[in-house]
Amino acid sequence: MPRPDPAEVFELSEEGQVRSPTHGQTHFASRYVDGSTIDWLREEAAERDRTNVQRSQFGVRGLLLPWFDASKMWFIVILTGLGIGLTGGWLDVLVKWLGDLREGHCSYGFFYNQVSCCSDVNSGEACDQWQTWGDFLVVESVLAQSLLHSFVYVSLAVAFALSAAVLVKSYAPYAFHTGIPEIKAILGGYVFTAFLSPWTLLIKALGLALAVASGLSLGKEGPLVHVSCCMAYFLSRFFKQFRNSEAQQRKLLAAAAAAGVSVAFGSPLGGVLFGLEELDTFANESEVMWRGFVASAVAAVALQWVNPFGTSKLVLFQVTSGSDTWRAFELIPWLTLAVIGGILGSLLIKLNVEIALYRRSSVLNEWPVLEVVGVSAITAAISYLVVFSRVQASELVANLFQECDANKIDYHGLCNPSAMWENVFLLVLTAAIKVLLTAWTFGMMIPAGIFLPTIAIGACLGRAVGLLTQGLHRAYPTAWIFLSCPPDPSVRCISPGFYAVIGASAMLGGVTRMTISLVVILFELTGALSHVLPIMISVMASKWIGDAFGKDGGIYAVWIAMRGYPWLPPVDFEDRGETGAHLMRAVERLVVIEDARNTIADLDTMLKDHDFHGFPVVHRHDFLGFVTRDKLRLAIAPLLLEESERSKRCVFSQHTSSNAEEQVDLSSLLEEAVLQLRKEVPKELVVSMFQKLNLRQIIFTTGGKLTGMVTKSDVVALLTCNFPHTASLSSGARRSWG
Amino acid sequence: MPRPDPAEVFELSEEGQVRSPTHGQTHFASRYVDGSTIDWLREEAAERDRTNVQRSQFGVRGLLLPWFDASKMWFIVILTGLGIGLTGGWLDVLVKWLGDLREGHCSYGFFYNQVSCCSDVNSGEACDQWQTWGDFLVVESVLAQSLLHSFVYVSLAVAFALSAAVLVKSYAPYAFHTGIPEIKAILGGYVFTAFLSPWTLLIKALGLALAVASGLSLGKEGPLVHVSCCMAYFLSRFFKQFRNSEAQQRKLLAAAAAAGVSVAFGSPLGGVLFGLEELDTFANESEVMWRGFVASAVAAVALQWVNPFGTSKLVLFQVTSGSDTWRAFELIPWLTLAVIGGILGSLLIKLNVEIALYRRSSVLNEWPVLEVVGVSAITAAISYLVVFSRVQASELVANLFQECDANKIDYHGLCNPSAMWENVFLLVLTAAIKVLLTAWTFGMMIPAGIFLPTIAIGACLGRAVGLLTQGLHRAYPTAWIFLSCPPDPSVRCISPGFYAVIGASAMLGGVTRMTISLVVILFELTGALSHVLPIMISVMASKWIGDAFGKDGGIYAVWIAMRGYPWLPPVDFEDRGETGAHLMRAVERLVVIEDARNTIADLDTMLKDHDFHGFPVVHRHDFLGFVTRDKLRLAIAPLLLEESERSKRCVFSQHTSSNAEEQVDLSSLLEEAVLQLRKEVPKELVVSMFQKLNLRQIIFTTGGKLTGMVTKSDVVALLTCNFPHTASLSSGARRSWG
Repeated sequence: MPRPDPAEVFELSEEGQVRSPTHGQTHFASRYVDGSTIDWLREEAAERDRTNVQRSQFGVRGLLLPWFDASKMWFIVILTGLGIGLTGGWLDVLVKWLGDLREGHCSYGFFYNQVSCCSDVNSGEACDQWQTWGDFLVVESVLAQSLLHSFVYVSLAVAFALSAAVLVKSYAPYAFHTGIPEIKAILGGYVFTAFLSPWTLLIKALGLALAVASGLSLGKEGPLVHVSCCMAYFLSRFFKQFRNSEAQQRKLLAAAAAAGVSVAFGSPLGGVLFGLEELDTFANESEVMWRGFVASAVAAVALQWVNPFGTSKLVLFQVTSGSDTWRAFELIPWLTLAVIGGILGSLLIKLNVEIALYRRSSVLNEWPVLEVVGVSAITAAISYLVVFSRVQASELVANLFQECDANKIDYHGLCNPSAMWENVFLLVLTAAIKVLLTAWTFGMMIPAGIFLPTIAIGACLGRAVGLLTQGLHRAYPTAWIFLSCPPDPSVRCISPGFYAVIGASAMLGGVTRMTISLVVILFELTGALSHVLPIMISVMASKWIGDAFGKDGGIYAVWIAMRGYPWLPPVDFEDRGETGAHLMRAVERLVVIEDARNTIADLDTMLKDHDFHGFPVVHRHDFLGFVTRDKLRLAIAPLLLEESERSKRCVFSQHTSSNAEEQVDLSSLLEEAVLQLRKEVPKELVVSMFQKLNLRQIIFTTGGKLTGMVTKSDVVALLTCNFPHTASLSSGARRSWG
Repeated sequence: MPRPDPAEVFELSEEGQVRSPTHGQTHFASRYVDGSTIDWLREEAAERDRTNVQRSQFGVRGLLLPWFDASKMWFIVILTGLGIGLTGGWLDVLVKWLGDLREGHCSYGFFYNQVSCCSDVNSGEACDQWQTWGDFLVVESVLAQSLLHSFVYVSLAVAFALSAAVLVKSYAPYAFHTGIPEIKAILGGYVFTAFLSPWTLLIKALGLALAVASGLSLGKEGPLVHVSCCMAYFLSRFFKQFRNSEAQQRKLLAAAAAAGVSVAFGSPLGGVLFGLEELDTFANESEVMWRGFVASAVAAVALQWVNPFGTSKLVLFQVTSGSDTWRAFELIPWLTLAVIGGILGSLLIKLNVEIALYRRSSVLNEWPVLEVVGVSAITAAISYLVVFSRVQASELVANLFQECDANKIDYHGLCNPSAMWENVFLLVLTAAIKVLLTAWTFGMMIPAGIFLPTIAIGACLGRAVGLLTQGLHRAYPTAWIFLSCPPDPSVRCISPGFYAVIGASAMLGGVTRMTISLVVILFELTGALSHVLPIMISVMASKWIGDAFGKDGGIYAVWIAMRGYPWLPPVDFEDRGETGAHLMRAVERLVVIEDARNTIADLDTMLKDHDFHGFPVVHRHDFLGFVTRDKLRLAIAPLLLEESERSKRCVFSQHTSSNAEEQVDLSSLLEEAVLQLRKEVPKELVVSMFQKLNLRQIIFTTGGKLTGMVTKSDVVALLTCNFPHTASLSSGARRSWG
């Protein structure tokens, strides 16, 4: 594109924004339709021009305007952090109250949950203020009472799930699912405004609370990230600087996503690292990481201020490991857990994909709300029967992470050595049920995250392995493998609670395939700082196993591929000696505009026939530049109205100056600063340029002559060609992001 | 470069490596001379060709060879991790023993340090086995004893420092300083083989132990990273795959650097993040981060196994904060500390730069060993006088991080409320002295890291502010600002030990300008997980202040600039509307080879006159490709010997085929797959392409005609133009990396 010198832009911007070429571009830029991808280079150029105009203002204005810009940005970042911190805190309170409502209510105030209702009662005493529904309705018989309890439990669960599904279906269809795949695509340049609308924000937050309270096998983590991004988007709409620039908006969204994770796990560092590793957004600019850092910290402070759990701690599942040391032989059960986690994680992904495909092709597609009702009824019934899953998943995880301690209540007899086999059986059963339920639930018409169920599955398995190892030690205390244990049997050698943490790490590694951010989240979640090494090792090993079993790149990458979003996975692509020539669409198969040959009417036909985002312009074979669809459409629209203009030839360069009255000069549309490569460049390098420079297309020329072109969609197709179900869930209308 | 199809390469490689064009390239690639920069694209291409050859082997060989390659890589990564973990552990033991030797020795075994000598003695009892030098020489008089003690203390300190300096000066001049600036430059592509030699490894490790034990104001962190990289380099020399590829070597070095940090701070996560943020190496390939992750974990396991401090913990400076909560009013003293840290950090950098420049221009340049002796004598004398600096810096920091506790020994009366003003004065004095000594020491002819002294300075100031705040609370317990403190005066409200942690974070933020990796390192170092938010806030604020005061990017960036290494800082460069045309060297000022015009003799003259790394080849004005200096020199060397060949014209293309006998065909030397841009591309984009794609040059063409060229050195010069002392310490001979 032409780069006017700052002085010229300054003059133009004084005249009025519409006529300024710079601001004209910005104006076009915000006109992306849903389903397209933004042009990062163009956006960055527009932003650059805008700041240059500001800086070149004389005197105080030139100093104040950029400062004012930055302060608006920080205002949004901090307000989003505050907002998501408070929202997250209050959602926790709401969920706790709704969840407790399934069992009873507070006699002196309907809106108290069990803990706050009984806060005056000393521990050890019975809490009379909290009435179960049986007490309330004065049902005396034990049988009738338990029937009543199970009935209320299941029907309230179904009612919550039903309301969530109806809300989502009626008001904000994009508020379902986790939202992280979409956020990843949006941060990569995908345009999907409806996904971030205020309605989606409201319904997702409310629906999330209902869905979690219903006891379905889902978590709040992913949806909270979505809610946080909706907030930042909503706030950004108030400022022209962000309304006009999709690129600037996305930088805000990245910070908001970090804040969302920070609140979801009470893990401010984990939030920043999640943004770094999983969203792959901070790699480009340290400034963006910086904002994520601030948003994360602010969100965590706000959450700590709300203090939803009454512990004034950020650490959700405090691990109370008695000893800080671990022994080398424990690596055997831990690596076993890592292998199980890797395999089961791959399996869960595959199952989830199959169910999603089945849902799409079967009658379920027509009745999403009924599906939610059915699954929630089944989940509630099973949960009520299997003791470990009756409580909220977060409570289950907290209990499984606890070590046995004589001073504390023994959770469901987990610490009873004689009941070891029953416990192991129940834990494995719970894990198996949760795998099936999670694979089904993740993708239904309700807000649902996959982190917490995965942690719960892993914690069950980990605790089971821990109990088995402990049993082995109890049976053979003098075996050589246990030599490193302290000889005194009253000192604990094996901590099954910590095995549950390892199980959770392994399972998360297998499902999400994250590495370092997962480790940080886990140890901010558990406070198990001294055990960071085993956590690292299990995450590493399970990712390895998972990658060996399924080359899918984790649950989020799978969903992105299934929905067909234009997102470039940050994988290391390795070619086998191919060059750009093997990847590019050759010039013979390209739709090009020929300088001084095509008429206005030709261009109109071309625009109607092809939905490409832009077209190369050539003179004979020489490449002149690139014209984007939007600019071209806007430029020829007025000319099409007059019949005399339609047959005029379009000129993009100064090559041919004859017959001026039969020509229309469109040279101002031409973007000249496009990237050109020779087709001999290795394919690997082409792919990595798309990944690192956020390109939308690369033009191939040799000696100035156009030889071909590669677009982002070609690269996405190349990188997802191994996955069999690519775009199987996409709506079809979204295909034109080429 | 030409990309032969795999089958052809396979045949050629069967014939013999020297004749294969692919391996020929690899061979050239390893011939970089010290002081040049590697060509990443060429290296990557060579590596790609090599793996393609392997994969295209038939049958089992095709499967086994790549697997074998990968296992060699993992072998080096794991062995380096083990090696640096063990080395780090044993260095700690050595340092402790040497340090204790300054005060006395163990009566029943000379090689025991004080702790292990007294390990049989119950706590509370006096340890008779440990004899001070006064006891040993049976000096009775108190005056004579203290004179003897101070004499032995100072003279042993000087002796240690002297040996370290002599070792470095005589055997491995590159073993001085921290090493991190050089590692950063090397990872960015700088070639500096002498820096990684086995001699450097040995001398740096030994010298480091002596330097630390001498009590000079320095730490072991940076040098350990250097030692770790030397190890990886040493191991990599045994495998042809790494010997031939500078790019592959660098990927190993990145993992080794992470392992070094992991051992230095006992912080495996911090190591990975340091690699990510400060060395900026993992951004390019997730595979490299993965290796860093493994190396870091292995190194930490090895260190824990050596268990140098007898605590079986990785956490070096365990914080024993009584309460997990902090109060909002504490943000005022903490932000004050952050401001002090930011300003003092900038000041320390500026002071260090001035001293380095003075050293270079003054007589000190001739007498580096004498300088070390002088500074170590002064340091030892001052340290002996000021009570807080008499112990090793690491012990001081550990003591300052401790909270006061009635059950524990009160370190130098820090917990005595009546001595508050004396303590504050002493702490501030210690900090001031340490600032001066550190600024002088960092850059002398001994191995020296800057992390630990910075932590010590910050901890002193932090503890002082903590004591003042505590004093204020004690004086006005009912003031409104302290309303959030518990009313019971026996419950501690303000924890001065944690203020020391905040002070250390702030100071580190100001000196290194790191963000997220610093936070992770600090909380792995202290275990203060519940206080991660205040640490984040203080690091953030002090980096902000530091950046506002000095736009230098931290101490390492300053040293890189002073030494003139070709390293691209990962800053966000913002142009003011300029394009590539403003940055490039225009074609009129380029040294180009003209196809079919220049003779062999011309080329020889050109090679002698200019030390550029390569030359563009043009036919009239059309750009044909790029020829690197190395290839050209090797190709024309045999031709220069025959007089008849010297006057032949060099042909690089098929344009001119007449007069075949008067021409030499050099077309095989031409690299055709070079990156070309139009000169209208924004400057910002050009800079970011250099930063992200590891380029060595970009050619600018318009319509196939050469218009200019930008090299890495142009971009480095652009990014460091704000720093006044660029290349002021470079040796001049290293300038030819253009």
